[in-house]
Amino acid sequence: MMDNALKALKSRDREMVLLEHIIAVLHWDQETGMPEAAVNERADQLSMLNGLLHEKVTDSDLGSILNDLGASDAHPLGDSSLSEEDRGLVRTYYREYSREKKIPASWVKEFTEVTAKGQAVWAKARKTSDFPLFKPYLEQVVKLNRERSSLLGYTNHPYDPLLDEYEPGMKTAEVAQVFAAMKLDLVTLLERIQIAGEVDDTFLYREYPKAGQDAFGRMVLKDMGYDFSRGRLDESTHPFTTSLGADDVRITTRYTEPSVSSSLFSTIHEGGHALYEMGASAGSLAGTGIGTGASLAMHESQSRLWENVVGRSKAFWTHYYSRFTKHFAQQTKGITMDAFLRGINKVQPSFIRVDADEVSYGLHVILRFELEQALITGDLSVEDVPHAWNSKMKELLGIVPQTDADGVLQDVHWAFGMIGYFPTYALGNLYGAQLFASLERDVPDIHDQISRGELGEVLTWMRDRIHQYGAIYSAPELLERATGSPLDPAHFTAYLEKKYSDLMGI
Amino acid sequence: MMDNALKALKSRDREMVLLEHIIAVLHWDQETGMPEAAVNERADQLSMLNGLLHEKVTDSDLGSILNDLGASDAHPLGDSSLSEEDRGLVRTYYREYSREKKIPASWVKEFTEVTAKGQAVWAKARKTSDFPLFKPYLEQVVKLNRERSSLLGYTNHPYDPLLDEYEPGMKTAEVAQVFAAMKLDLVTLLERIQIAGEVDDTFLYREYPKAGQDAFGRMVLKDMGYDFSRGRLDESTHPFTTSLGADDVRITTRYTEPSVSSSLFSTIHEGGHALYEMGASAGSLAGTGIGTGASLAMHESQSRLWENVVGRSKAFWTHYYSRFTKHFAQQTKGITMDAFLRGINKVQPSFIRVDADEVSYGLHVILRFELEQALITGDLSVEDVPHAWNSKMKELLGIVPQTDADGVLQDVHWAFGMIGYFPTYALGNLYGAQLFASLERDVPDIHDQISRGELGEVLTWMRDRIHQYGAIYSAPELLERATGSPLDPAHFTAYLEKKYSDLMGI
Repeated sequence: MMDNALKALKSRDREMVLLEHIIAVLHWDQETGMPEAAVNERADQLSMLNGLLHEKVTDSDLGSILNDLGASDAHPLGDSSLSEEDRGLVRTYYREYSREKKIPASWVKEFTEVTAKGQAVWAKARKTSDFPLFKPYLEQVVKLNRERSSLLGYTNHPYDPLLDEYEPGMKTAEVAQVFAAMKLDLVTLLERIQIAGEVDDTFLYREYPKAGQDAFGRMVLKDMGYDFSRGRLDESTHPFTTSLGADDVRITTRYTEPSVSSSLFSTIHEGGHALYEMGASAGSLAGTGIGTGASLAMHESQSRLWENVVGRSKAFWTHYYSRFTKHFAQQTKGITMDAFLRGINKVQPSFIRVDADEVSYGLHVILRFELEQALITGDLSVEDVPHAWNSKMKELLGIVPQTDADGVLQDVHWAFGMIGYFPTYALGNLYGAQLFASLERDVPDIHDQISRGELGEVLTWMRDRIHQYGAIYSAPELLERATGSPLDPAHFTAYLEKKYSDLMGI
Repeated sequence: MMDNALKALKSRDREMVLLEHIIAVLHWDQETGMPEAAVNERADQLSMLNGLLHEKVTDSDLGSILNDLGASDAHPLGDSSLSEEDRGLVRTYYREYSREKKIPASWVKEFTEVTAKGQAVWAKARKTSDFPLFKPYLEQVVKLNRERSSLLGYTNHPYDPLLDEYEPGMKTAEVAQVFAAMKLDLVTLLERIQIAGEVDDTFLYREYPKAGQDAFGRMVLKDMGYDFSRGRLDESTHPFTTSLGADDVRITTRYTEPSVSSSLFSTIHEGGHALYEMGASAGSLAGTGIGTGASLAMHESQSRLWENVVGRSKAFWTHYYSRFTKHFAQQTKGITMDAFLRGINKVQPSFIRVDADEVSYGLHVILRFELEQALITGDLSVEDVPHAWNSKMKELLGIVPQTDADGVLQDVHWAFGMIGYFPTYALGNLYGAQLFASLERDVPDIHDQISRGELGEVLTWMRDRIHQYGAIYSAPELLERATGSPLDPAHFTAYLEKKYSDLMGI
């Protein structure tokens, strides 16, 4: 029976993965060049396929199959006689199936309606910096997320089941502890860097023609190990990575002429995501539901590691700066490599999370994590959110936005109905730093290699420790397997301490 | 009951159209830039969606719905109380449903296997000009098509049901009669043109940079009325037009540097197809199964009318030649507009159908139509096809290919299993000429308009008489409604007579 059930699960898995990839084709096309008038029917196409997928995930026959494989709340990985890989597959579908079964259709309907309207209202509210306009929708979103938390159930904290949706296996208490340590370190470091004085990065905002940005970005991607026979690079308004097939992992970037910084680091960032997907959707995991990243934060660890730990490092630019200036001789005239390095690593508290530097970024996330918990527990009312936001900005970053557009209204996540997502961004930085510390231990001359433009060992190590396991294990488990220790935020702050003491002489 | 059945049909129609459009997205992506390694999974994605579509088309509930709407072999349009539009929809689905029901799964399986292998073998056979290699597959294809003809049933000619699949409502006897008249005229005209002497077209094969070809092609498309907010132009190995949505009709072209002719006329040709689709998938037909062209031949009438009747006309180049030479001053130096016009209309019998001029093209199609009929009746054995091919080439075009690669092996259609398709190409020319003759009658100064670069009336007339009806009527019916007469090949030969007497002074 187990054999048949496993066969049935894999056949269903294949159909669902194919559907997900087809949905990804439609999304990719929509973002990269679909004719504007096509948008309405495309929504119908996506809605039909998402409906099909939902039917398959919630099909009670899937429930029986998972049951036959021994899956239950007590044994979410199924029967212990199954292989690790198969247990990973059981875990993935049992998780989805049992979650969907707990959420009634009425909740889904209300959520869909509230967030559909909420997104449009949010966009308008942000434009006019009008929080009261968005307030009723945020109230609904909070109410719905509290209901969702109850429906899914929890033991310790009502925020747990929400967080778990985005970062399976992670608990609120653990994040809180880790973030508390990180907060202390970041605030101190931020102060020290600010005392060290102003950094000039104006040269990054000169006229950098797109053709050069594109050529340089593609060269770096190739050196990183991005396989263009299994992917392609396109342009879109917001950069993203998407899997349209096991051997079709595409990335997009945005060329923000005149400035160069955004496209360059977006390309490397998305390249990091893509390398992970390419490595996870290979071998026996290719084309299965576990041939993908372990979690959002683990994904973010790969993108941020390439973008920041590698891409903004002295070693990296030791090799690449002369190649960069070949494309942009005019723009970088008189700028030494060290000055360039300080420019791309400039730290300056600012209002907008997505524009934040490596040091203040974590503080932006902590702010949201703290507000979200308080909203879910009921300790904070929606009405008081703008005030709470601004006080926390003052406390963490020492600045206060003049408008809600630059404050509480800046992110789209709440309008999408997503509460529990933000922590994954900062966790990604923590995972990435911990992984890189392990890599440095295993490959002591990694910085020398990078400074010769040899990026291969970085990828090889990640393939070996992280990528090849796809989503077989949860992210915390995978991190511990890869590095030998549970999550420890000290690696991240040590990395930043070292970087900025080298850079700024602090 | 009728109301409910109609509602049910429309709901199913919507799902099938969405699926077809999603399939088109996958195909378009595959042809325009999908990473090479993605090809295997893309085949699985397409196979899954095609399977879903097939399930829907053959669903016995669809049969009941059509039955409730009064559809039967005697009344394929359903109940006479339905609107014209709804009867068109009933006709479309009754046709597909009852056809699929007649074909057993065993036939489909064999056909799929034979043609899958046959295509690969054909490609190899063509490369090495090895007909015996392809022969067993062609024998299977002929056998399967004869079986299919029997399964579908016919009254007069076994070729009828095959032809009807590609050109609904058209009969072998009618095509034979029409082609007989056309053959006589074309053979005579061909001889007269050849006597008139050699035409120089070498200037078309100079170095025409792609950027100029692209810019000129886009300008012409815009002038034709192609709506870039509902479509886009890309590159692919073989040019095509495809509907990815009611408001998403894309075309591709191929820039054959150095020469200019192929890309230029491909772009206009596909533009003609796209204008038809855009006009048919509008208003109440948008997003329905009849919001598309009436038939292959009617589609071809639109593409060839724009490519040849408009795009190779003196009037057209009176306006565009100076715009063309602006892009290509060097390449067209010393070439007068008249010389250019003679060059792009050069007539010369050659072996390959797809490269044929307007006069000999029809003869290539007649050859295939005659051979296909003989294969289906059993009057010709597959073994004798190369010999028959070459004799007919001699008879119709006065030349004999040296190799089967330049003869019987040149087209992919038989390897795909398609018998009955070829006539639609020539019928397209006939429909197009008849439509344009009507347009000339209705808009006497149309040539003057075109010579001022005003192409709008051509589109307006086609929208009014052809496009807006989508696939409500069969092509023969639509042609008669639009022009007031049944198909008459004299319009086509008269058009060619006039053109070449003006051009060559014959």
